[in-house]
Amino acid sequence: MFSRIDHIGVAVEELEPALELYRDSFQLQLAHREVVEEQGVEAVLLDVGENHVELLAPLGPETPVGKFLARQGPGLHHVAYQVTDIDATLAALSQAGLALIDERPRTGIRGSRVAFVHPRATGGVLTEIVEPAAAAGADH
Amino acid sequence: MFSRIDHIGVAVEELEPALELYRDSFQLQLAHREVVEEQGVEAVLLDVGENHVELLAPLGPETPVGKFLARQGPGLHHVAYQVTDIDATLAALSQAGLALIDERPRTGIRGSRVAFVHPRATGGVLTEIVEPAAAAGADH
Repeated sequence: MFSRIDHIGVAVEELEPALELYRDSFQLQLAHREVVEEQGVEAVLLDVGENHVELLAPLGPETPVGKFLARQGPGLHHVAYQVTDIDATLAALSQAGLALIDERPRTGIRGSRVAFVHPRATGGVLTEIVEPAAAAGADH
Repeated sequence: MFSRIDHIGVAVEELEPALELYRDSFQLQLAHREVVEEQGVEAVLLDVGENHVELLAPLGPETPVGKFLARQGPGLHHVAYQVTDIDATLAALSQAGLALIDERPRTGIRGSRVAFVHPRATGGVLTEIVEPAAAAGADH
């Protein structure tokens, strides 16, 4: 069902100090930077082998990541698993009785198709499913 | 420096309901189960491609994971990056000025060598470095 961990999402107050850590100290390659208005974040992707770290800075305090930061401070925000067919995966998860935040995929970073499973169905772990855009270099 | 995300660690109250989610609903392969007395947990590893999910149930309320659960409930606990030479990595991180919880590696699950970076050096993200045991099937 899941081919790998696509990324971990990390909530940060500001991108620059986080980039100093992940790009400079951890020596991860910066892969992409994008304002995702729909999700209220500016996001940066860095490569870790075939996986990624996604840094998420809120566009304002009333965004989901802004509220997350106000509630519990910076830190691990979500985990995303990569799939090759998000429609089939969502159907399977729904059939397994899991509550979904997104019944249908929406557009994520780099033209991917994404959906979130509800944390109450996953022991408090905000869980994202990602089908990369074909051009993004998935291994198929 | 890091070859991939080795695993995400997930704090759970009990292993069985978490296994129903990760093994049965998410269809991840159960790879390993171990009581790690030194860390006060019973841990289960499940495969996600070359990555893993590590479920962590505390052996008691006074353990680090027990205190984590009391403080913020179940959810994402840490992220671990895989390296081929943990001694060289710790030296490099220390040289970069990062505070380490473990100046020297200790023994982790499945005979791996592990060390934790202090969350105050990593924007609140508890970060583990893992050098797998040779027999554990690292790609070298």
